[in-house]
Amino acid sequence: MSSEFRTVWAEPLTQFCQRVFEKMGVPSQDAFTTTDVLVLADLRGIDSHGVARLRRYYTGLKNGVMVPKPNIQVVRETPVTALIDGGAALGQVAGKRGMEMAIEKALKNGLGFVSVGNSNHYGIAGYYSLMALKHDLIGISLTNSDAYVVPTFGKEVMLGTNPISVTIPTLKQRPWVLDMSTAVATLGKLEVYGRMGKKLPLGWATDEKGRSSDDPVKVLANIRSRAGGGILPLGGEGEEFGGHKGYGLDILVDILSGVLSGSGNTNLLYPKTPEGKPLPSLVGHFFGAIRVDFFRPLEDFKKDMDDLIRRLKDSKKAEGHERIFIHGEKEFELEEKYRREGIPLFHKVYEDLKAIGDEVGVPFTL
Amino acid sequence: MSSEFRTVWAEPLTQFCQRVFEKMGVPSQDAFTTTDVLVLADLRGIDSHGVARLRRYYTGLKNGVMVPKPNIQVVRETPVTALIDGGAALGQVAGKRGMEMAIEKALKNGLGFVSVGNSNHYGIAGYYSLMALKHDLIGISLTNSDAYVVPTFGKEVMLGTNPISVTIPTLKQRPWVLDMSTAVATLGKLEVYGRMGKKLPLGWATDEKGRSSDDPVKVLANIRSRAGGGILPLGGEGEEFGGHKGYGLDILVDILSGVLSGSGNTNLLYPKTPEGKPLPSLVGHFFGAIRVDFFRPLEDFKKDMDDLIRRLKDSKKAEGHERIFIHGEKEFELEEKYRREGIPLFHKVYEDLKAIGDEVGVPFTL
Repeated sequence: MSSEFRTVWAEPLTQFCQRVFEKMGVPSQDAFTTTDVLVLADLRGIDSHGVARLRRYYTGLKNGVMVPKPNIQVVRETPVTALIDGGAALGQVAGKRGMEMAIEKALKNGLGFVSVGNSNHYGIAGYYSLMALKHDLIGISLTNSDAYVVPTFGKEVMLGTNPISVTIPTLKQRPWVLDMSTAVATLGKLEVYGRMGKKLPLGWATDEKGRSSDDPVKVLANIRSRAGGGILPLGGEGEEFGGHKGYGLDILVDILSGVLSGSGNTNLLYPKTPEGKPLPSLVGHFFGAIRVDFFRPLEDFKKDMDDLIRRLKDSKKAEGHERIFIHGEKEFELEEKYRREGIPLFHKVYEDLKAIGDEVGVPFTL
Repeated sequence: MSSEFRTVWAEPLTQFCQRVFEKMGVPSQDAFTTTDVLVLADLRGIDSHGVARLRRYYTGLKNGVMVPKPNIQVVRETPVTALIDGGAALGQVAGKRGMEMAIEKALKNGLGFVSVGNSNHYGIAGYYSLMALKHDLIGISLTNSDAYVVPTFGKEVMLGTNPISVTIPTLKQRPWVLDMSTAVATLGKLEVYGRMGKKLPLGWATDEKGRSSDDPVKVLANIRSRAGGGILPLGGEGEEFGGHKGYGLDILVDILSGVLSGSGNTNLLYPKTPEGKPLPSLVGHFFGAIRVDFFRPLEDFKKDMDDLIRRLKDSKKAEGHERIFIHGEKEFELEEKYRREGIPLFHKVYEDLKAIGDEVGVPFTL
């Protein structure tokens, strides 16, 4: 580990962030939930969605985009569905509420699908799908997000990196956890390439003409200034490698999160006043839970999941590779390691946490 | 249109195929359903899944892999879920039954999810998701299929091209219809490249060492002989362009279709007796229907869908492109054209239909 990093432990990191949220007026339980989502991202190695984003939430609470004591309302409810107005809550708070309702409904009636509108950035999609696991349910979590992605044959950013997460229970194997953005690469990855002075692989992002670019600095500047170009959907540029499929999945997430909730599709998110003051972001989520034993005995299903995973992992490897991975496996292994050895935080992130602590008056002793 | 093609009309084509199925012992209504799925594929330009496959079904019925008068059983049922044993029916017959149940349940209770096991190849996934449209429901259709796809870092074909189809109702715009395989390319496309003597784009398929290959003839021979290598998941080779995401979506379809139905994952499909005689193929499907107005007023949802589609289509185009497409749009345009001008059938397919007609004694007058 180079000196670029500082090792911190999950528990004091959680306590610190929770106190920051509390200082911003967030009730203790909600402050914990929000922090728990952030720290789990760091533990699972998805550091772009971890405590590095604390300032974003801190700023959001300060400028009123995120509401510390929101009025979260169930707008419409049936035994298997619900629509929730998030009341401009922290996305983690509205998100957890939505997934909890989906789980309750699935436990009682076999299925639970809940759409959440008027929310904010909810962190890693996988946190919510993983909530279904302790109830042995299949968990689904989708969200739309700020526009970084261009349509196939387009050059305006019209879609988010809109993730899909699905968690499936298993018996002895690790649970199967898909948690993927529908873009070919994330903004965070482009930033890493930019910092390292590396060229982007062609097929990740486009320039202001809408053609593949290998220049991360230019692409990021163009996305921020809306000069044209952006990240490509999964499948890359055009249709040759299935870019239209990633583009379709990206739209699907936007429909289920933004249009079904009535909150607004990607294009309508992050509105501002005429004076440029940010308004509540209108992010939408979609949660689902499915009770396996409404279809077949749970034990049989789990055994067959183990069998499927074992077959995949034991199958013959491509030249130069010694291991086939299962979705979520790398993240579970990192989590175990980081709980044992501490989380490596970028020095810059560490310093920023310290600065936030100073600003709000929470002692920083990590 | 070159002389490689013969133009046929949807109606007599449907009548001919339906009669072939009837001659094979399939009840009239089921014969129509099966044919309807095949002809719609041709009308929508997905000719790899159209009447070109009539011989496959004809052979399946002849050798007992597909049962003409199946005992389709509802194994387990609740107000929002069902598990169906397809009784080795034609996939179209079991599939339509499954989607009809999903639709009925969604109309009554808001959601309907139905898993179908012990079925066969069901044609285009989009046929079933489209069935939800006339009820203004969101329709979902997934299926597993014969193993052509390798896992990320693997070189054995362990997964199908397992498609995902979702149909979303709109107001004045064309309905949004996603119908995509989770592989980067289909077997049919590789065959076209092979016939034309063209090299494959690197990132579509791998050779017996599990490395990218541009040789379609070799790749196809290797897939058939299980010599190693196969089609890559959406996102291509390795993880750089998100191949692990396509691999994950592919597994997800297999879980919901094969494991949830208890029928068997891709690895267990298309079993044979020790003597090499094919047994029922054990293909599984998963169908879903969602009632929009359980979340928000249907009219509002449809208007917002139109708005989303218009924004995407009107957004700025990449250099060299004049049009941004919406999923399903190309297929609807082809369908209108082919209903007006006739369907161009490959001469080879035309001749094969004629031969089947001769074999079963159905006059071929197309």
